[in-house]
Order: sequence, then C-alpha cells, then structure tokens
Amino acid sequence: MPRTASGRSSLVEPLPHHISCDAIHVSFRADPAAIAAFLPPGLEPLETGDGWAMIAEMAKVSASAPDQAWENPARSTYNEGVVGFYCKFGDKVGRYSALVWVDRDWSMGMGPIFGWSKRLAQVDRSRLHAHNPGMVKAGPGAAAGGTVSRYGETVLRLSVQVPDDAQPMTALPGHAASTFLYRYIASPSPDVPDIEQLFELGLANTSMSTVWPGMGTVSFGTAEDEELSVLGDVTVTGGYLYQRGWTTSASARLLHDYGQDGR
Amino acid sequence: MPRTASGRSSLVEPLPHHISCDAIHVSFRADPAAIAAFLPPGLEPLETGDGWAMIAEMAKVSASAPDQAWENPARSTYNEGVVGFYCKFGDKVGRYSALVWVDRDWSMGMGPIFGWSKRLAQVDRSRLHAHNPGMVKAGPGAAAGGTVSRYGETVLRLSVQVPDDAQPMTALPGHAASTFLYRYIASPSPDVPDIEQLFELGLANTSMSTVWPGMGTVSFGTAEDEELSVLGDVTVTGGYLYQRGWTTSASARLLHDYGQDGR
Amino acid sequence: MPRTASGRSSLVEPLPHHISCDAIHVSFRADPAAIAAFLPPGLEPLETGDGWAMIAEMAKVSASAPDQAWENPARSTYNEGVVGFYCKFGDKVGRYSALVWVDRDWSMGMGPIFGWSKRLAQVDRSRLHAHNPGMVKAGPGAAAGGTVSRYGETVLRLSVQVPDDAQPMTALPGHAASTFLYRYIASPSPDVPDIEQLFELGLANTSMSTVWPGMGTVSFGTAEDEELSVLGDVTVTGGYLYQRGWTTSASARLLHDYGQDGR
Amino acid sequence: MPRTASGRSSLVEPLPHHISCDAIHVSFRADPAAIAAFLPPGLEPLETGDGWAMIAEMAKVSASAPDQAWENPARSTYNEGVVGFYCKFGDKVGRYSALVWVDRDWSMGMGPIFGWSKRLAQVDRSRLHAHNPGMVKAGPGAAAGGTVSRYGETVLRLSVQVPDDAQPMTALPGHAASTFLYRYIASPSPDVPDIEQLFELGLANTSMSTVWPGMGTVSFGTAEDEELSVLGDVTVTGGYLYQRGWTTSASARLLHDYGQDGR
Repeated sequence: MPRTASGRSSLVEPLPHHISCDAIHVSFRADPAAIAAFLPPGLEPLETGDGWAMIAEMAKVSASAPDQAWENPARSTYNEGVVGFYCKFGDKVGRYSALVWVDRDWSMGMGPIFGWSKRLAQVDRSRLHAHNPGMVKAGPGAAAGGTVSRYGETVLRLSVQVPDDAQPMTALPGHAASTFLYRYIASPSPDVPDIEQLFELGLANTSMSTVWPGMGTVSFGTAEDEELSVLGDVTVTGGYLYQRGWTTSASARLLHDYGQDGR
Repeated sequence: MPRTASGRSSLVEPLPHHISCDAIHVSFRADPAAIAAFLPPGLEPLETGDGWAMIAEMAKVSASAPDQAWENPARSTYNEGVVGFYCKFGDKVGRYSALVWVDRDWSMGMGPIFGWSKRLAQVDRSRLHAHNPGMVKAGPGAAAGGTVSRYGETVLRLSVQVPDDAQPMTALPGHAASTFLYRYIASPSPDVPDIEQLFELGLANTSMSTVWPGMGTVSFGTAEDEELSVLGDVTVTGGYLYQRGWTTSASARLLHDYGQDGR
Repeated sequence: MPRTASGRSSLVEPLPHHISCDAIHVSFRADPAAIAAFLPPGLEPLETGDGWAMIAEMAKVSASAPDQAWENPARSTYNEGVVGFYCKFGDKVGRYSALVWVDRDWSMGMGPIFGWSKRLAQVDRSRLHAHNPGMVKAGPGAAAGGTVSRYGETVLRLSVQVPDDAQPMTALPGHAASTFLYRYIASPSPDVPDIEQLFELGLANTSMSTVWPGMGTVSFGTAEDEELSVLGDVTVTGGYLYQRGWTTSASARLLHDYGQDGR
Repeated sequence: MPRTASGRSSLVEPLPHHISCDAIHVSFRADPAAIAAFLPPGLEPLETGDGWAMIAEMAKVSASAPDQAWENPARSTYNEGVVGFYCKFGDKVGRYSALVWVDRDWSMGMGPIFGWSKRLAQVDRSRLHAHNPGMVKAGPGAAAGGTVSRYGETVLRLSVQVPDDAQPMTALPGHAASTFLYRYIASPSPDVPDIEQLFELGLANTSMSTVWPGMGTVSFGTAEDEELSVLGDVTVTGGYLYQRGWTTSASARLLHDYGQDGR
C-alpha cells in the first residue's frame, strides 16, 4: 500500500526482489516447550529444539527497478535480525522465522504480505574490513558481533569468533529446508474475519559464500513486547560467518487457511 | 503480528486505543482529476476538489494497558502527517486519508489492519510554548509549521499563521463525515487472492479544543515513491490549530469487498 | 562549525536562543561520595547530596532567525534529558548538569561551546493531552513519565504522578541558583593544551508556569559508556510537572581556567 | 566530554583509533572562487579547483577497547560522507575536509577535538554483495551510489559505474598529501576568546585495497544550513571504488593559532 492508480506511491516495489546478506549466524537448541509458544497453531518444534539467530547487513535489488540499487541506496540496503526455529507441519519439516527486526519501513512493509513478523529496530553488526589496522577479515582469527536494540532494550546479541585454525565450509549444517510463513492480520470490522494463513515458501537463485565456522554466543533481552527471554539459556550448537543470496517471489504455496479450514 | 501464544510479542496492542492530536491543519482544493488518482476504485472526488493536510504531535492510550502512557512514553507518543480528500461512495460522502506518515513502528503496524497507507518518516511540528520568550502560544498572533521528511525529501510542508484579531471557533468547517478505509494487502501466493476491501469507520468519544483559524500554506515534494506533487498548486481554503481526541475501535463496517463483489 | 565565509553552513545558529521546556522533573538525594565522581575538579557536592533529573519536550527560537520556528520545525524542536547535581565552588552554590541527552545534532553542537556533556539518545515523555479520552491533563490526577534510551539501554527513567488533591505551586523548591559549566575539549596535538575551563552562567527572561507537585520515581540504567547506576538507589525528594522558558546567551563568566590557573 | 573521574562516561574513547572505509569516491574540479568560501582563513584553493566527495561505510577499532568491535558493533560502525578540497597554506599543499556527515554521535564527538565539521545525517551507500542475484560485486561492471540526507534534503549524491573493461589501480590519483584541520569553537563568555587553530595531521598505518576506476557523478543539494550548491556544476575528473584503512592519533601539528598569531 498505498495502491494509487499509478502504483508509484507503493511502499513495496513489485516482486521479485533479489536479496543478499552478510551474516553472523548462531545455531542453538532450546526447550521445545518454550519454542512451542512462538510457533503458529499446527506447527510443532523438533524434539531437538533446534533454532537459530542471525544478524546481517542486507541488500535488495528490485527486479522492476534494478538501477535503484545505485541511484537510491537508502531503498536498497537494510539491516536485519531474525530468531527462528525448525519445526514440523505434519510430516513436513521447515524453518519458521518467529521474530524479525529490520531498520527500513519498506522492508517492514513486506511483513503483512508474507507473514513475516517484522518490526523496526536498530540492527548493527561488526564490519570486518581487511584494511582496518585493528581487525582480521572474515576467516581464521576473525571476531564479529551483532545487536538488535529497540525502545531502550537490547533484545538480541550475537557473537561469532573464528579460531585461527578454522576450516572453511561450503554450506551451513542443517540448512536444507523450506520456509513456513504464518500470516496473521487482524480485522478492523465485525463484518470480515481475521486473516490467518500458513504458507510454504521456497527461494530461488540461492547461492552461498564460503562459510567460516566458529564459537558462537547468543543472548536475549526482555521488553514490554518482546518475550524471547522465556527461551532461557539455550545451548549453542554452532557459529558461522557467511554471505548468501536468493530471490524472493510471490510464489508461496498455501498449506492451511485457519479461517476456512479450522484452527 | 506476531501472534505468539501469550500475545505479548504483538506489535500492536489490542484495540480500542484512545488517540489525541495537537494539530496544524490546512484545507485546500485541488483538481478533482488529480485527486482521483489517489482514491480507491469506486470512490470519486467531490466536484469542489476538497482535501486537507495535517501534521500533529499525537498521543495513544491503549485501553488494555493504560499505564503504558506514563511507564513507556516511547510507545504512547508519535507524530503523524496525513494528506486526505473528501470523496463519495455512491451517495455517501466521507473522508479518505490517502497518505499517512508516522514515526513509530507500532503506529505503522496499524496500517494493514485498518487500511491506512502508513509509512515511516521524520514528522515535526512547531511547539508553541507559552513560556518561550520568542514565541506566541496557540491563539492570536501564533505561527506554526510542520514538515514530513523521508529519504532525503521534504514531502509535505504546512504552515498556519493566526492573525492578531482571530476569532476562536468551536469546530473545523466541513468536518462532519465518517471515514473511508481502503485495505489492500498483496498476496504472497498464487493460491490466495489479494485482499482488497472498502470500509466505513466511525470514531467514538470525539472531542475538540478551541479551533484557531489562520492563513495556511501547503506544499508537496516529490520522491521516487511519493507522487503528491502531481496535485500541483492547490488553493488553500483555510488553516487551523487545534487539539482533538477520539477512540479507535475494530468497529469498521464493510462497504465493498473487491475480491468477492467485483471491482 | 563549520565556519565558512557566509556562516550559512554553521551547525549552531548565532546566540542568543530562546528556549522552553515542558518538563517532568524529579529531585533526589544521593550519596555525596558517589556524586563527587560526576563533578569537575574543584566542585564539591552538597552535604545533602541534592540532585535532579529532568526529561522534557523543548523548543528553541534563534533570535537571529525567528521564523525558523514555524518554517523549519525540525530545527526548532528537540527533546532533552538531564541529570544534574547541586554543588559548591568555594562558597558559591550552583547547579551542574552532569549528563545531558538530546535528539538533534544542532543541539548536541552547543556542547563544546558551553561545556554541556551532550550526547544523542531517544528521549521521550508522555504527552498529557486534555482531549485524549484516556488521559488526565497536567494537574491533579495526572501521570507522566519519561525515558532516555541509547544504544539498547534505557539509561534514565522518570515518572511523576500528581495526586487528586495536589496544590499548585509557583516555583520549584530550591531552584534559585546559577549554573556551573565545565568545558573540557581534548587537544588533537602535542603542540596545544587541552581546553579545561569552569564558567558560571545566568539565564535571562526566565518564566515558569504553574508547577504541579507529585510522587516521583527515578531509575538509572547502565551501559558501556554510561555510569549513572553507580549512584545506586537514590532518595526521591519531589516530583514536578511544569513548563519553563529562558534565554541563553554567550554571557558565561570564567571562574577558573585549569590550564592556566592549575587544577 | 563528559570528563568524569572514571572516564567511563566519555563519549569518545581515548585515541588512537583504527579506522577503515569501504568507499565511493568522486573527484571533481570546481571554480576556485567558489571553493575559497569553504576554506579557513589563510588556505587557498589550487588553481585547478581540485576537490573530492566520498561516501563510505566505516569501521572503528579503539586501541583502548579492541573487543568493542565485536561486543558492541553500534559503537564501532558508522557511515560517513565528506566533501573536501585540495588547498595550500603558503607552499604546503594539503587536503581539507570542508564538510563531514556521520550517523553516530560518538563519531560527531570527534569534531571539536580535531576540527572536523561533523554533523549528523542519514548516510547510505550501495552494498555490492557478490551473492546477490541482481548485482555485480566491486570490479568491472559494478555500479554503486551514495547519498547524504539531512532534515528533508539530499545534500550529497554520488555514483560510480565501473566499465566492463576497467583496469584495477593500486592507488588513487593525486592522493599523496597530508590533511589540514581547522578547529573553530565559539566561546560562551566575553572572558575567553574563541578557539581558532590550524593543524596538519598525518595518518599512520595506511593501506589501500585495489582501486576500481569508473564514471563518476556528483550532485549537491541545498538546505537552510548547507551551502554546497554554490559550487554549481562541477567537472568530474574520476570515480573510484576502494577500501582503505589507517590509524588516527592525537599527533596533529599546530600550523597557526589565529587568536595568538593573528588572522
């Protein structure tokens, strides 16, 4: 929205969008009972309680306006933090991004379309510049961190330290799963129902840089409208630095419409 | 969203919300043909081309969490700019807020629910403090302005100057009309339709302070995704300073579902 | 700065500036030994350990550009938080603002000139709108709060609740004292000394609204570069809501130049 | 500042700082008479009217707190825009950064120390991610842009497009010169003079990545307190993409004290 006749005032450009990230990623295990509170109805946590947190500097290229990437960088760069969990819908295993923080309104505007629970925050991660006299670039010996801050609380804090003898990887462990989307939009009227739908989304054109593994840390803050701290102390299973790219299209498949099919 | 089991992580608190504004308001007339491009299908501009622009400092008290107003002022104050037009749906005359800018994500989150085309911006208006040695408070001799800035453009600029001999009013001229809401949310999937609905919304508990009339100015900027400047030079019909309050509930009435009833 | 030939690019407009605040103010007593760590060399806390915290919405009118107040509201409004202490320089008692947070760069730019330790933060306070259905305006029964948030920490939190039977006052208790300014600017060069000076500043054109007294609360957060929490639990001595105005000029008197007169 | 006993509340960590940039850089020539208005007293533009503009994503590692780079990324990353000119002080040729925009208060706090005219702005540049399906990484075929926006104006806009047959370089043309610093801080008191000093600063530990040359564009906006547009249309002499690192210390040499040596 808004949907004016010319389409020019639209907050979100038409899909598809080509997305990329320069990410700090920490995988962890938490109590499945605590995870369950974050999942949509019908999705169950894995017994292992696997989840992940990621903070990244991102880039977006709209296929409909490719020159925007250099003409208007404030509309083609953003920072993002995510906390998500692996889960099951019946037999189907997938990844569910339970909470997402971004720092641009045009990225937050994708939320109601795709069912990403996006809110605005200050999202920052270390920049590992090879030419900084005080830094080691991404690779053996590197240390990077990320924070998500919102309304006077640090709600997510990550770090990854790559040992001097780290061996590069070509993929993240456990990464091959599609994505569940849970789209809930309240109704303004007694005349129409709330929108509540579950989708499955695949990503196209995915590519991954070298993945550098290391020691990860993750901590969650608490705030009036952030409940991540109920996860308690989680067990870190890995820390990674990588860059990744993909294309997002309006190609989600409807798995369940709660309004029509029942909850 | 998100809709976690506890409800705690919800970006938007449950309705109703008690809202108030300290507003600079400029009414104008523009070419109905230019206005038409901003209206949803089925709504027509008035022949007079009446519209308005407003910039205000706002307060929100959630009925479900009244202490938030003093415990967490960053979640109960926001600034807002609006450009809207009077229009008709068949015989029904109402007000349609075509573009809305706010500076808090929790206010932007109301957009997909109610059909307000909200985006984030820097919204500022003069503060007319009675004790500032260089100012005249709201009333005869006062001058106030407002700006909406976004991504390096000033998209809306207002001013109102109240003459020394201004006579206070008890209401804004032409204000008695309900509100049209046009709710458009794109679908992420070929399996479900876009959401496209037209509603009518009334507000409860409305009250108005003294209204100070004056000379108004309004100008629109242009940007990659802002098209207000196509309105061209408009004719100002009034300028006003006032405070107003009301309650917003999930009480909108569905007028038309474009998906089901046809466009 | 910068000091270009035309003066146009200056971040800070020429003085004097007419300033006003709509303030939440909590006075407290803390351990004088803890306070001493915040004071410049040569200033001593009062035995009573009196201090105060304030969060306000502010307005600034530059005498050199009075129309800026309505032409460019983003340059004439700002929010400010202050924690300060009463102290003595020899026999002279005065007020010293130890830490100041603002949300505009042009206000932060006043810091090196006047010796105010200004940094940027998100500063918010409740807006007590008389017409909000869920609020009581400033006066008996009102409740207001303020927060200063910076880099993911809430460093200062205040509240004032005015009892239903509150009696209005005409002045803040203990308010009659001039202001100490401690100006410290590090040198970039072994060839020039650091700047370190103590001044006394009076304000002109001061005026005060009705002062509403109430129950106050204050709490301090902690962060990498914020040490307020070392004050520990303080004893609140009063809470107040008021508006105030004054004029700031380049009229400070030098009390002590540490470089020339010795520390 | 502030200079509390523990030093903990200092906005700016002790020097030295290790700095790095990922930069878009456009060199240009302008009318020396227009440039002269931006230079401090005693500095003259080159007859060629050479100047430059740069927008970069930056990293800072404080030698006194190296872990801050990953523990607190919001205090070790910032974006910066600069417009500067080559000039002469007597026979000495150097570079003078006339205007600097940053997006962190701790970076702005370096301004009064070093004489950099820093103000806050939204500073953005394209992120050339190798794995984004819609982008070409820095090198042949790449296109990158940068913007500096402030108070509703885009004050600086740059772009660099690298041709498919571009040949990498090892250094920027004309880069070997030290830096002039002009430090002007107004006095708050008739008892002390304004601070007005000219320094020369060298940087240590400098290193440069491959430099990719391309076609550059630069444009300046105008605002109430930004006068860059008086430069008019400049002639672009080059466009470059590079990464660079260096160490900043308190090692500036005093060239002229305007207060003591006369203007």
